[in-house]
Amino acid sequence: MSPSAEEVRSSSEFAELLEILGTVADLHAASAVLHWDQETQMPPGGATDRALALSTLARLGHETLVQPRVGELLARLEGRTADLPYDSFEASLVRVTRRHYQRAIKIPARLAAELAEAASLATDAWTRAKAANDFGAFAPHLERNVRLVREVADCIGYAQHRYDALLDEYEPGMTLDDIRPLFARLKDRLVPLVRAIARRAEAVDDAVLHQGYDEAGQWRLTVEVLRAIGYDFQRGRQDRSAHPFTTSFGPGDVRVTTRIDPNDFSSALYSSIHEGGHALYEQGIPEALRRTPLFDGASLGIHESQSRLWENVVGRSRAFWRFLLPKAQAIFPEQLGRADAETLYRAVNRSQPSEIRTEADEVTYNLHIFLRLEIEDDLLEGRLSVADLPDAWNAKMEAYLGLRPRDDAHGVLQDIHWSHASIGYFPTYTLGNILSVQFYEQACRERPEIPDAIEHGDFAPLLSWLRERIHVHGAKLTPQELVQRVTGGPIRIEPYVAYLERKYGELYGL
Amino acid sequence: MSPSAEEVRSSSEFAELLEILGTVADLHAASAVLHWDQETQMPPGGATDRALALSTLARLGHETLVQPRVGELLARLEGRTADLPYDSFEASLVRVTRRHYQRAIKIPARLAAELAEAASLATDAWTRAKAANDFGAFAPHLERNVRLVREVADCIGYAQHRYDALLDEYEPGMTLDDIRPLFARLKDRLVPLVRAIARRAEAVDDAVLHQGYDEAGQWRLTVEVLRAIGYDFQRGRQDRSAHPFTTSFGPGDVRVTTRIDPNDFSSALYSSIHEGGHALYEQGIPEALRRTPLFDGASLGIHESQSRLWENVVGRSRAFWRFLLPKAQAIFPEQLGRADAETLYRAVNRSQPSEIRTEADEVTYNLHIFLRLEIEDDLLEGRLSVADLPDAWNAKMEAYLGLRPRDDAHGVLQDIHWSHASIGYFPTYTLGNILSVQFYEQACRERPEIPDAIEHGDFAPLLSWLRERIHVHGAKLTPQELVQRVTGGPIRIEPYVAYLERKYGELYGL
Repeated sequence: MSPSAEEVRSSSEFAELLEILGTVADLHAASAVLHWDQETQMPPGGATDRALALSTLARLGHETLVQPRVGELLARLEGRTADLPYDSFEASLVRVTRRHYQRAIKIPARLAAELAEAASLATDAWTRAKAANDFGAFAPHLERNVRLVREVADCIGYAQHRYDALLDEYEPGMTLDDIRPLFARLKDRLVPLVRAIARRAEAVDDAVLHQGYDEAGQWRLTVEVLRAIGYDFQRGRQDRSAHPFTTSFGPGDVRVTTRIDPNDFSSALYSSIHEGGHALYEQGIPEALRRTPLFDGASLGIHESQSRLWENVVGRSRAFWRFLLPKAQAIFPEQLGRADAETLYRAVNRSQPSEIRTEADEVTYNLHIFLRLEIEDDLLEGRLSVADLPDAWNAKMEAYLGLRPRDDAHGVLQDIHWSHASIGYFPTYTLGNILSVQFYEQACRERPEIPDAIEHGDFAPLLSWLRERIHVHGAKLTPQELVQRVTGGPIRIEPYVAYLERKYGELYGL
Repeated sequence: MSPSAEEVRSSSEFAELLEILGTVADLHAASAVLHWDQETQMPPGGATDRALALSTLARLGHETLVQPRVGELLARLEGRTADLPYDSFEASLVRVTRRHYQRAIKIPARLAAELAEAASLATDAWTRAKAANDFGAFAPHLERNVRLVREVADCIGYAQHRYDALLDEYEPGMTLDDIRPLFARLKDRLVPLVRAIARRAEAVDDAVLHQGYDEAGQWRLTVEVLRAIGYDFQRGRQDRSAHPFTTSFGPGDVRVTTRIDPNDFSSALYSSIHEGGHALYEQGIPEALRRTPLFDGASLGIHESQSRLWENVVGRSRAFWRFLLPKAQAIFPEQLGRADAETLYRAVNRSQPSEIRTEADEVTYNLHIFLRLEIEDDLLEGRLSVADLPDAWNAKMEAYLGLRPRDDAHGVLQDIHWSHASIGYFPTYTLGNILSVQFYEQACRERPEIPDAIEHGDFAPLLSWLRERIHVHGAKLTPQELVQRVTGGPIRIEPYVAYLERKYGELYGL
């Protein structure tokens, strides 16, 4: 007879595996604190020491995970958990650990450490290069990152494309051959929409956002909105950083950052809501999964579905502005005292090709991703060199969005990802966009009260649905399994495209 | 023939030792970042995850240091470095590593990890217990810390007193039998001075400090003073915390904290100068010692000599106030516009028995230390239980300082040290006080221009002397060796007592 879940859990092998995974998780958490500090607090002189420390933590985390004992424990526990329910803690832990282990053992510890150190130094160099608009200062770091990432991909191996080996880390089970047709169909629908909007560009005005909004007031509003949607400041905090991000050190400490632009009222607000969406996911993962690989999102695409759901589907809706406007007016009576919710709703949904991805509207956003995916694939396959990257970037911007960035700081240097040596990450943004609408529509089918509640500033019905249907699983399910469970089918672009066509058709009178 | 320093340095054994010590240093640096974050940034919910992560980092650091390979490498390198100059990098590294190693191998990894976890949880509990004035909430944590620390002392072993095993970590080579007679002689000289001052208590007035000083202005002044004395903000930052401290993550990132009391102008100012003194020491240790046990102060007593030198000998001098007053007046024209330097000099040197150690004046400060030393010894030897601690504290406060703390928050709960499981640490404060005067007088003998330079806001002559005579050695020398080298003799209380009698005799007209 197969052992019960309780028998597995109380076995010495399971306890030993948990202990090892706890060490790995603690090392990851420590690295996350060091990264957070690096991007929000660290003085310039700290870069060298920080890179060395991060490299050591990465190496030790890697060494701890790939020790042969983990393979032995997994082999023993796989037999014993085979008959347990698929999403039981025990079966899920063994299954997901196996996936991490199989990936990790292919990467030499030396390479993992070198990558961590290179990424930390490159992040520091990127920050300064972006500020100085000096791609040349960043180029050697990027070259090193690309070289190391190619090495990683070749260690891991792939059937079709080098890209697949990297994508799989962020989006388990997905390949370039899955993504390309999905993105191609999306592009076919988006390009006519972008063109139609361009012909009616003057139909939406966002002047209301650019009246000058002091930083302290914007900060207060972001905190108020984060609280409203359910972000728990007892288990997190918000800070400022060059590039907004969310990071988790465990169930009790999930932090967000934002950036504030006095000349753009929407920048801080939507950065905070976006990161707040990520943070609600992390804060919603059950504490019982703490210090295991199950204490994580299902994938970056699923993670992004949460941030984009809150940022766009909720935050850029009419209902949301009916809730938010009085609060924004209380902070900015001069700028907003006579504005109405419709004006704000229209302003924050203005669609226009622009140079900065994170500030792109919902329609043009994905074009930025298509561009990055193609460039990453070209870099990996050696069809493009780092030296030629700025020109390639600008040419593609021209082709996709009809504009040339004013400089590299607003072009090829705008994103932090490549400095982190994160290649294969960008497509998850578009997957998240697609899923945000699929999930939201499913939520509204199951809980029709959601839209009305949002208008009244009650986000609990939506959040509790997300908690129960998505967050509760942590990383137990693959993204495909999760989408199937939640929506009853695979990822589909149609709801997303229909949402965009409906929303922008109405906004622009198409 | 013995190998040269270059031959040792290029040997594979030396490289291997450096690599291991680098890992230990990186783990310590990561712990330091996590501690800093815990005390300045962490949301309340983060305590559990943080304690687990710190425990793992401590365990891994310990395991890395005590691996048998370190013993083998040391044994081989000791022979080869025996004829090298005593403070060569190679000989010092082997000698100091041996000391750390011999201590660490006596402590089981399980105990090191448990201690780190207990300390992190206790620090969190202490913060809340102090705020709530609830000793009972902290007591179980303190009991656990005392139990674990006793266990550590018994693992390490000692000739005379359990206390010696702990003191040795902070003050290598010192024992209770060294300290007691030194402190007894100091007490004999301080008690009459305290009594004489008490009879002339009204001679010094500090009303100027208590006029209400807004926090932003105080903050600006502390930053200005830190810059003036030579603290490098490119390689550090200042934050606020409940208990001011200095922490180093390496030569490029040495941070200080302060606390601000709007009703006491001197609190933030002298906290910042004190921590600034510690930080100047850390920022002055040569980069070449990075990631080794030599990248440290010689001892906590030597460290404290630096902080007290800047805080008291410099910062509470007439010369310093002639420099600082115009800067303080520019920030607080209303409160200080008509004050003179003499008024400030007298106010910041007012001596009066008080309940809080960190805010005690130079004369009464050491009485706080004598009390703590006795209590710690009693706790370790089992002559005092944690339950009886508040009563014992209050009785000793009455006996030494003639007052009873208003409550436990201002009594037994005031210091963070016991929550960190740091027992045996307090005597180093008095050692630092004694040495601060010994060092300063030596500096003035060698560089007579120092006092005049201070009056003109030029701290470079003093700082460069400290750099060249003290900071440059890092942890190569023991405190006794360093004091001998710098002053030509052992630690002596006479210069310190003479300084106090002269200064306070004049202030109080004794």
